Amino acid sequence: MKNKLLLMAAALLATNSALGQKLLTLEDVMYGGDNFYNLAPENLFTTWWGNVAVETTPDEARDLLTGKPVVSVEELNSIAGETIARNGHDLEFPYAGQTIAKVQSGTKLSLIDWGKKAVVCSIDIPEKAANQDFCPQSRLLAFTIEGNLYISDGEVRQITTDGSTDGSENIVYGTSVHRDEFGITKGTFWSPDGKRLAFYRMDQSMVPSYPQVDITQRIASTYTDHYPMAGETSHQVSVGVYDTEDGSTTWLKLLGEPDDYHTNIAWTPDGNSLYIQELNRDQNDMRLAQYDARSGELLSIALEETDDKYVEPLHPIEFLPWDATKAVYQSQRDGYNHIYLLDLSKTPAPMTQLTSGTWVVQSVVGFNSKSKSVIYLSNESDPRRSCLYSVNLKGERHSIGEVDGVHYATLSEDGTRVLDRYSSPAVPRSINLLSTDTGRGKNLLTAADKWAEQGYSVPEISSGSIKAADGVTDLYYRMVKPVNFDPSRKYPTVVYVYGGPHAHNVEASWHWGMRGWEAYMATRGYLLFILDNRGAEWRGRDFEQATFRHLGDNEMRDQMAGVEYLKTLPFVDAERMGVHGWSFGGYMTTNLMLSYPDAFKVGVAGGPVIDWKYYEVMYGERYMDTPEANPDGYARSSLLGRAGNLKGRLQIIIGYNDDTVVPQHTLSFVRACVDAGTQPDLFLYPEDKHNMVGRDQVHLHERITRYFEDYLK
Amino acid sequence: MKNKLLLMAAALLATNSALGQKLLTLEDVMYGGDNFYNLAPENLFTTWWGNVAVETTPDEARDLLTGKPVVSVEELNSIAGETIARNGHDLEFPYAGQTIAKVQSGTKLSLIDWGKKAVVCSIDIPEKAANQDFCPQSRLLAFTIEGNLYISDGEVRQITTDGSTDGSENIVYGTSVHRDEFGITKGTFWSPDGKRLAFYRMDQSMVPSYPQVDITQRIASTYTDHYPMAGETSHQVSVGVYDTEDGSTTWLKLLGEPDDYHTNIAWTPDGNSLYIQELNRDQNDMRLAQYDARSGELLSIALEETDDKYVEPLHPIEFLPWDATKAVYQSQRDGYNHIYLLDLSKTPAPMTQLTSGTWVVQSVVGFNSKSKSVIYLSNESDPRRSCLYSVNLKGERHSIGEVDGVHYATLSEDGTRVLDRYSSPAVPRSINLLSTDTGRGKNLLTAADKWAEQGYSVPEISSGSIKAADGVTDLYYRMVKPVNFDPSRKYPTVVYVYGGPHAHNVEASWHWGMRGWEAYMATRGYLLFILDNRGAEWRGRDFEQATFRHLGDNEMRDQMAGVEYLKTLPFVDAERMGVHGWSFGGYMTTNLMLSYPDAFKVGVAGGPVIDWKYYEVMYGERYMDTPEANPDGYARSSLLGRAGNLKGRLQIIIGYNDDTVVPQHTLSFVRACVDAGTQPDLFLYPEDKHNMVGRDQVHLHERITRYFEDYLK
Repeated sequence: MKNKLLLMAAALLATNSALGQKLLTLEDVMYGGDNFYNLAPENLFTTWWGNVAVETTPDEARDLLTGKPVVSVEELNSIAGETIARNGHDLEFPYAGQTIAKVQSGTKLSLIDWGKKAVVCSIDIPEKAANQDFCPQSRLLAFTIEGNLYISDGEVRQITTDGSTDGSENIVYGTSVHRDEFGITKGTFWSPDGKRLAFYRMDQSMVPSYPQVDITQRIASTYTDHYPMAGETSHQVSVGVYDTEDGSTTWLKLLGEPDDYHTNIAWTPDGNSLYIQELNRDQNDMRLAQYDARSGELLSIALEETDDKYVEPLHPIEFLPWDATKAVYQSQRDGYNHIYLLDLSKTPAPMTQLTSGTWVVQSVVGFNSKSKSVIYLSNESDPRRSCLYSVNLKGERHSIGEVDGVHYATLSEDGTRVLDRYSSPAVPRSINLLSTDTGRGKNLLTAADKWAEQGYSVPEISSGSIKAADGVTDLYYRMVKPVNFDPSRKYPTVVYVYGGPHAHNVEASWHWGMRGWEAYMATRGYLLFILDNRGAEWRGRDFEQATFRHLGDNEMRDQMAGVEYLKTLPFVDAERMGVHGWSFGGYMTTNLMLSYPDAFKVGVAGGPVIDWKYYEVMYGERYMDTPEANPDGYARSSLLGRAGNLKGRLQIIIGYNDDTVVPQHTLSFVRACVDAGTQPDLFLYPEDKHNMVGRDQVHLHERITRYFEDYLK
Repeated sequence: MKNKLLLMAAALLATNSALGQKLLTLEDVMYGGDNFYNLAPENLFTTWWGNVAVETTPDEARDLLTGKPVVSVEELNSIAGETIARNGHDLEFPYAGQTIAKVQSGTKLSLIDWGKKAVVCSIDIPEKAANQDFCPQSRLLAFTIEGNLYISDGEVRQITTDGSTDGSENIVYGTSVHRDEFGITKGTFWSPDGKRLAFYRMDQSMVPSYPQVDITQRIASTYTDHYPMAGETSHQVSVGVYDTEDGSTTWLKLLGEPDDYHTNIAWTPDGNSLYIQELNRDQNDMRLAQYDARSGELLSIALEETDDKYVEPLHPIEFLPWDATKAVYQSQRDGYNHIYLLDLSKTPAPMTQLTSGTWVVQSVVGFNSKSKSVIYLSNESDPRRSCLYSVNLKGERHSIGEVDGVHYATLSEDGTRVLDRYSSPAVPRSINLLSTDTGRGKNLLTAADKWAEQGYSVPEISSGSIKAADGVTDLYYRMVKPVNFDPSRKYPTVVYVYGGPHAHNVEASWHWGMRGWEAYMATRGYLLFILDNRGAEWRGRDFEQATFRHLGDNEMRDQMAGVEYLKTLPFVDAERMGVHGWSFGGYMTTNLMLSYPDAFKVGVAGGPVIDWKYYEVMYGERYMDTPEANPDGYARSSLLGRAGNLKGRLQIIIGYNDDTVVPQHTLSFVRACVDAGTQPDLFLYPEDKHNMVGRDQVHLHERITRYFEDYLK
C-alpha cells in the first residue's frame, strides 16, 4: 500500500528519527494497522473453572496462581481422537470441580473429560447454524438456521417451523429483537436447569425492507433488511417456551399492544416462571411481569416504572443465589442508576435501595454468595472512572482493588474472588486476582507502555472539566496536545465528538481513553479536544434526558462551550478549528457545521443521522417520540432544511451498506445541498456497514486525516 | 445560492471590471445557468407548411418570406372555444395547402381548420399516455399506458392486453427497444396511409432489474430497471402489425434468434410490407428483410451485410418519393458511410453507390422530388464540418448554402427548398431559406456574438490537427487559451475528453464546438485541450473500429499524443495537467489517471464505465464482444485491477440513479481502491441519472472547477 500520507509520514519519521523520535503512523495506532498488535500492552488470557482462576495459552490451560497445568490442547485432541481444539484460548471449563473442558469449533461442540479420558458430549453444528446458545446443565445447544429454531444434543430437534426460509426474514425465531436496544443481545434463554428454552419470535413481515444493494453480485441486487423507521409500522415480538421433556411450546400471554417491547427476560431459579420487562411503544411505562412457563399466563406484575420522558430497561433482574425470592433490579428512578433489592414473594414487590448517591452503578458483576453481597462497578469516586465495589444487603459497601481507572471484572463461581482488569491514565493494563471480601489480592500483570518503550513520541494527554452551557453542570474533556508542543505556537485544533446517549468518550482509562487516531493527529501537529456533552451516559438521568425531544440542541451548546474554552487557550488557533465525529457524532459534526458555520472551517462527518425520521423506531422514538407526536422537534432537528448554511468544507463518509444509519440520511442531505447550492464532499465505503473495520479503518482514517491536511492545515 | 466559487468569481469580476472586462460565470455559460439564455445567440422558430416556410412566435405563425400572418393562437383558441394552444411555437401544419393547424397540449390533441373555422379532430389524451405518435393521414394517435398500446381518434382502442401493468415492465409495447441503440428512438410506426400500425413488443421478464433506489419515498425503495449486462441474458423483441380497419394484429415471423436485434423499421410506400434491418446478437451479420404486413411472412431478403468486426445499422431505408421500387440505404461497407440506391424490385436488391470518398455522409435530410435528388449532410470539405449537398441518381452532386460550419436542415414537402441552420467558428447562428436546386437563397438571420457584444472577455479558441499514435492518422483538436493569455507564462492545462464511439467533440461550429465550461475555465486561468481520438464518429470505419475488442487502448494512446503535443508548447505547464470527461470520457479519465499516473496530477471522471461487463449488451458487445468470447479484452480494459495505480487526485462523480452506466461501476471501483489502499474522491447526485441537467449542471461544474482549483492550481 503506497500513498501520499504514508510517504509523508515516512519522510517525517526520517526527520524525527534524527532527533531520536519515532512518530506513530496509522499502521501503529489503528486496530486494522499492520503494527497495532505489536504495540498493544501485554495481556493475559484468563477464564474461570469454578473458583479456580485459569490462564490459557495457545497450547494449554494452567492454574493462574500455581502455574500448574490444567490440561493441554494436545491431550484433549488425543482423547477426542481428532483435532477438535486448535487453541487453548478456545477452552472453557463450565463445570466446577469436574475435569471437563468445553471445546467449540465451527463444526462441533465437545465436552471432554480429561480425568476420565472420555468424550462426554459431542454435537455436530450444522453449517448455517447461527445464534448458538449452549446450556451446560442440559448439555443442549440451541441454534437457528434461517428463520427457525433448533436444539441438539447430538440429535437435532426442530423447534419451530414457520420461520422464513425464503430469505425474506419475515418471521425469525431465536434472534435478538428490537434492534438490540433495551440491552437485548440474543434470542434464546435457557432455564436454570436447562429443561426449558424461552425464545423470541419476531414477525417483521409488516416492516418494509430498506433497499440495501449488494454490488458483489454479477448484476447488483438487493438483500433483505427490515428497517422500521420512527413513527412507522414496527415489528411484533412474542415469547415462546419450549419444554425439552415433552416437546411442547407454550406462548406467553404477553401484556400490552402488539408492537410493545418485551425486554430483559429472566428465569426464576426454579425454572417455572419468567420475568419480562414489558415496555409500551411510547417507552414511558414499564411493567416487570411474571409469566408461568407452563401455561403462559401472567402470574404477577412485580413493579411498574413510569417517567414523563422515558424509562429504559437495560438489565434483567438477577436473583440472589442464596434467596430465590429476591432479586436485584437496576433503575435510575432516583436520578442515577442504582441497585435495588426486590422481594418477589409479594406483589407488588417491595423494593429496598442498596446503593444511592449522585453517581451511577455501571454494571452488576455478580454476587459473593458467602458474604451475601453484590459486586458492581460504579463511578462513585469520579464520573470518569469505573471501579469495583461490594455492597451487602444492608447497604454497606467497600471498594475492591484500585480505586482509579476503568475496570472490567469476572467473578469466580461463589463470587469470593474476582479477576479484575483495568487501565488508568498512567497504567496501560493491570490484571489482578482479588478477594471480593478484602478487596485485596495478587497482581498478575502490570503492562508497560510499549509506545514509550519503543521510543515513539507520545503526545501529552490530559483531562479536565468545564461548565456546560447551563453554567452549572460539569463536563469532562480530554485534550491531546501536538507532539513537541510549543505553547507559544498556535495549533490547528480538531474537536472529536460523539455526543449521543449510551456512550462517553472521556474516561479514566489508559491515555484518558484516547483513540489511536488522536495520537496520530498529534504527531501531525494537531491539537485534539474531546468533550462529553449532556446526553452522554453515566452522568445520571437529568444529564441524559436534557436532550429529550430535541436531540442536538443542548449537545451542541455544550460543545460550543468547549469551543469557547478552547478559544481562551493561547496555543489554539481559532481560525483553524475542525470537527469530526461518527454516527451520532456525524450528526453533531454536520449540525455544528450548519449551526455554527463560522466556528469550524473543516468537518468530517461519518455515518451521520440527518433526519431522525429515517432512524429506527426503538432508539428514535425513545429520544424524539414519533414524528406525529413531535413534529416541531423532528423539523428543528432535521439537517435537510439547513443544507444551505454550509460554509466550510464538510466531508460526509458512510458505509454504502450501512444498516444502522441507512444511506437515505446522507443521500437526502446531499440532494438538499445540491438543491441549496452548497458543496459538501462525500465518500462511501461499498460493502461496509455502519463502521469500517480492519484495513478499511486504516483507509478511512488516512482519508479523514487527508481532509484536515488539505483544508485545515 | 451563495458559495465560495461564486464569491470568488464576483471578486474577480470586480477586479476585471476595472479593466473594462466582464468575466463569464457558470450562470452565463451553463444551460442551467440564470443568465445562459440571455447570452444565447438570437434565434428564429421555424416550421414547414407544405412548401411554405413558417415562422412561429408566441402569438402566431407567419409566412417567413412575406411576413404575412398565417394564423394566430387567439384565433385557434377562439375556434376551439377553449384554450387549446398556449404558444405559437407549439403549432404544426401537417397538411400542405389546407388551413389546418395541429395543436397538442398535455391533455388534448386538436386539428383546427381556421379557414373553415372548425375543429376537425379532437383527441383527449389520457393522463398516463406515453410514447405518443400521431398519424396525420389517419388522424389516429397511438400511445402507451404502462405496458400496453392504444390508439385513439377520440375513441380509445386498446391494441394489446398482456403488457405489464404491475410496474414490473416485464412486457412492454410501443416503446423504443434495444436500449435506443441502432438508431431506434420509438416503438410505433404508422404505415404511409395510416391504416396499419407496426409496433414493438419487448419481453424483458428474463432480464434482472438493476436495483435503483428511490430515496424520495418515506422509506427508500427500489424501482424497476431491467438492465441486460454484456454476456448476460438479453431481452426479446418482436414486431406486431395492427390493422386499424379490421382490428386484427399480425406478428411478423422474424428471422434469427430470440435475442436478435430488429432495427430500423421502414414501411413500403404501399403500406403492405415492411423492411427491417435484422442483426444477429454478435452484430456482425445484418439482413435487410421484407415482411408481409398481412401475413407476417418473410417476403424477401433484400441484402445482407457482414463485417469481421461489426455491422451497425443506424438508418431505415428511405423510399424515393417518385419510385416506390427504390430506396436509399446508408452503409460504411466501403470504409465510409455513404448513400446507396437499392432496387427493391429484385432479390437480392441491386445496389448503386451514389456518394463515395474518404469522407462520410452524416445524414440523409430528404429528397427533392422535382429534381429527383437526395439531400444530405456530409463532411466532404473538412472532417469537422457538416454541410449540405444534393446528389442525383447519376451521382452528380452540388453543395447547398455555405460550405463551412455545422448545418442542420429541414426540407419543404417537395424538397425544393430547405431551411438551413448553421453555425461556424466565426458565426454564432445563421438561418437561411435556400433552393436545393441552386443552393442559394435568402438569409433570414445572422446572429451576433452576445458575449462580445456585452463586453465579456472571450478566450481565444482555435482548432488544428496532430498525428495519432499510429503516426499516420490526423486527429483534430480544439484549444481554448486562458483569457488575457500571456505566452510567456505557463498555464495549468485541462484535457477534456470523451473518446468513445458515436460522438465527436471538435467540430467547425461556433467556437469550434467549445462547451461553456471551457470558457469558464479559461476565465479562471486554465488552458483547455480537446482532441477527438480514434474511435470517434465521422472519420470512417477503420478509424472507429480501431478500438474493437480493446476499448481504451488506442483511445488513450491518441490522447497521450495530444499530451506530448501540449508538452511542446511553452505556455503549457506540464507539471499541472488535469483531465476531465464524462461517461466514456469518465472511463478515459480514470483509465488515463491509472495508466499514465505521472502525466496527470488531477482528474475528474463523471459517470465512468469501469468494467465493460457491467455495461449493457447492445453497445457493449458491439465493441467488446461478450466477456466469454473476449475474456482478455474485458480483463485488460477493466479498471478494477488497476485501482492501486492511482497516484494523483481523482474525483469520480455519478448520478446516484444512473441507469446508463449503473452505479455498480463506480462502487466496484471505489471498493477496489479501498482494498488497494488508494484514495479516490467521490461524489454522487441523488435522484440524477447519467447526466446532470438544469441547476444540477451548474452545481456539478462548480464542483468540477473547485476540484481543479483545489489541486491543480
